[in-house]
Amino acid sequence: MAAMSAAAATNPNSLLKSNTQINAFPTTLSRSFTAATTTVNKRITCSSTTFQTPAATTGVTSPDRVFNFAAGPAILPENVLLKAQSELYNWRGSGMSVMEMSHRGKEFLSIIQKAESDLRTLLNIPENYYVLFLQGGATTQFAAVPLNLCNPDDPVDYIVTGSWGDKASKEASKYCKPKTIWSGKSEKYVNIPSFGALEQTPEAKYLHICANETIHGVEFKDYPVPNNENSLLVADMSSNFCSKPVDVSKFGVIYAGAQKNVGPSGVTIVIIRSDLIGNAQPDTPVMLDYKIHAENNSLYNTPPCFGIYMCGLVFEDLIAQGGLSEVEKKNVKKAQSLYDTIDGSKGFFRCPVEKSVRSLMNVPFTLAKPELEAEFVKEAAKEKMIQLKGHRSVGGMRASIYNAMPLAGVEKLVAFMKEFQARHGV
Amino acid sequence: MAAMSAAAATNPNSLLKSNTQINAFPTTLSRSFTAATTTVNKRITCSSTTFQTPAATTGVTSPDRVFNFAAGPAILPENVLLKAQSELYNWRGSGMSVMEMSHRGKEFLSIIQKAESDLRTLLNIPENYYVLFLQGGATTQFAAVPLNLCNPDDPVDYIVTGSWGDKASKEASKYCKPKTIWSGKSEKYVNIPSFGALEQTPEAKYLHICANETIHGVEFKDYPVPNNENSLLVADMSSNFCSKPVDVSKFGVIYAGAQKNVGPSGVTIVIIRSDLIGNAQPDTPVMLDYKIHAENNSLYNTPPCFGIYMCGLVFEDLIAQGGLSEVEKKNVKKAQSLYDTIDGSKGFFRCPVEKSVRSLMNVPFTLAKPELEAEFVKEAAKEKMIQLKGHRSVGGMRASIYNAMPLAGVEKLVAFMKEFQARHGV
Repeated sequence: MAAMSAAAATNPNSLLKSNTQINAFPTTLSRSFTAATTTVNKRITCSSTTFQTPAATTGVTSPDRVFNFAAGPAILPENVLLKAQSELYNWRGSGMSVMEMSHRGKEFLSIIQKAESDLRTLLNIPENYYVLFLQGGATTQFAAVPLNLCNPDDPVDYIVTGSWGDKASKEASKYCKPKTIWSGKSEKYVNIPSFGALEQTPEAKYLHICANETIHGVEFKDYPVPNNENSLLVADMSSNFCSKPVDVSKFGVIYAGAQKNVGPSGVTIVIIRSDLIGNAQPDTPVMLDYKIHAENNSLYNTPPCFGIYMCGLVFEDLIAQGGLSEVEKKNVKKAQSLYDTIDGSKGFFRCPVEKSVRSLMNVPFTLAKPELEAEFVKEAAKEKMIQLKGHRSVGGMRASIYNAMPLAGVEKLVAFMKEFQARHGV
Repeated sequence: MAAMSAAAATNPNSLLKSNTQINAFPTTLSRSFTAATTTVNKRITCSSTTFQTPAATTGVTSPDRVFNFAAGPAILPENVLLKAQSELYNWRGSGMSVMEMSHRGKEFLSIIQKAESDLRTLLNIPENYYVLFLQGGATTQFAAVPLNLCNPDDPVDYIVTGSWGDKASKEASKYCKPKTIWSGKSEKYVNIPSFGALEQTPEAKYLHICANETIHGVEFKDYPVPNNENSLLVADMSSNFCSKPVDVSKFGVIYAGAQKNVGPSGVTIVIIRSDLIGNAQPDTPVMLDYKIHAENNSLYNTPPCFGIYMCGLVFEDLIAQGGLSEVEKKNVKKAQSLYDTIDGSKGFFRCPVEKSVRSLMNVPFTLAKPELEAEFVKEAAKEKMIQLKGHRSVGGMRASIYNAMPLAGVEKLVAFMKEFQARHGV
């Protein structure tokens, strides 16, 4: 953290003017008020007191909370939600909600600056990279990446390991000359190629990957290197962002929708090497020009303030957990438990993905008896394990087990799978 | 409301499949839970009970709440914030936050469907118009409008009554041939032209206005009519959206960032006549193509779910207030009180805007003694009236008095202005 602050301080364009004005959470808060509406009135009383206990971030403590295996928007850390709830009406004595704050006021500036600072800490982002908080999802970046990095005739390479990489490549074809140098489509996206065998285009301006395919459950475990010194590695990390340490310096651009691991939908984070901005094609919409956002510290127009605030709370929580190395250990343990159950089911459950590239985040699986799949999903939902149906394009089941899914959720799912098999299987 | 539901039911592309599944608020809720974090634990108790009293939606009831005169993001209705807080952790028994819901799940679909239904009710939107919930702010629409409505060589007309209209015109020049047929810039944007004197371009594909200029406080009270039957009126209504009734049928496209009158930042609402979609320029980014969003009910990619939910709560509140005619009456009363104070100050306070086009939403004013302006803003803030400083491009002061600003806030400001004048003025 100390090293990070120093790095940030040397970046003249960083939002991180100083860490000293960043507020800590107040340790106590209490409030009572009366709200009037036209038809009904509510009296709501909230109070929050702080007390010390041993650390513990996992575990669902409210009996009415479900285990939400949705692929995104997805489960968020329970303590983050409670914190957001406690300060939704009056953020830390400011007399207003984060949703009401001017994006140029000192309160919101402290929020976005701390969010950037904490993300830089988490991913150890080098000082020569900008961090941008944008809108429009990864799908907007499918256009922004080529518009900012290429001229219309420039060749670029895409490795397509699932539906999202395929969509990215198709959108790029409007703005440059993308070539799919490898596609797993014919095998229904269950693998990642050997990097040595890739035939990269000699003059390609960048090499694009989707680091984790949310629908197909295929995840890069290491990364290919572009074949010429002027090329860049560009990654859509939407569904495994902040799930494990990443060497940012290997990438020219990393982009991610927030709504899987780090916040609500409506925030898109772009991490871009500073020398890559300023060359957008002339007809680039101003909102897709990285230079505009970098020079304005993501405040060229009104950013998605509340979403950025939520991301900031998640970043704080990830740091409190010990950072991304610790987070990765938990994710490995959860995923291993689920894959072991599938692989040990003697074929009752099946995961089509090649073992070496199975995702830590999204676990697709099917039943040997497909006619039981609807029942599996339905019974699981009755047990408060929801959103286990696979993506409509592939069918079967999918358990998305992002950072915020507690081990207890995976353990409950595994127990249910074994019990389901005992009733129906071999 | 009945008429609206019928209209919606006849639009096959409407989100409004049925109103029957739309949930009402539960009338009671209570909950207690314990949350664990790494370093500190909090115990938060919230309870909410419902009771009947006469209607009253205005009035700030919490003594620590400020009157927030920010231009946007801006003040939100207090009862909406309290409702959002009460169900942030567990939305209506779903076991999850709105921020965690799959955008394709039945819970969120009920939210976005009801938001659309209520907005259609409020603005009496004809059935042949789509309502889209998008991202990127009005600035993204500055590009999307010409990309969707024009070919590159098509002429279009812009009436420029402030900075936002000017920005819109400049962005359009990337995608068509915009002509500024009237600009108030030389007079520092204090007026709106007589429509009869406008020289519209004969073949213009649309005529663009900014219905309310947030920075300069200039508001259209009625609307110009395009000069040929193939042309369209297009309006940026970001800062007066849902502040008064509007005849939507006069417009081809209305667009608005939510963060002034109807929600938090991060949601952009587009209302577009259905025959206008499907003609986007070939290189339009997919996220800027209205057809994609219309055909997918704003769910082509992950929408800004929590923001849409908040907009829905605001729409419910506006309906509960009696609809936009009632809302307009309150806005007129608030604005009148403020302008009367300015005009009655014998020149101590000055509003530069021509009286007939003064905004109901944004009231810019200066002091005859400019050296007192900083003190005015500072003293007001001490009295919990914040964000009264004018936009950095024009200076002076600005009071933004959107729907959610209670009359009590304006009364307090007026009293302060008179007291300030008594101390410093004539």
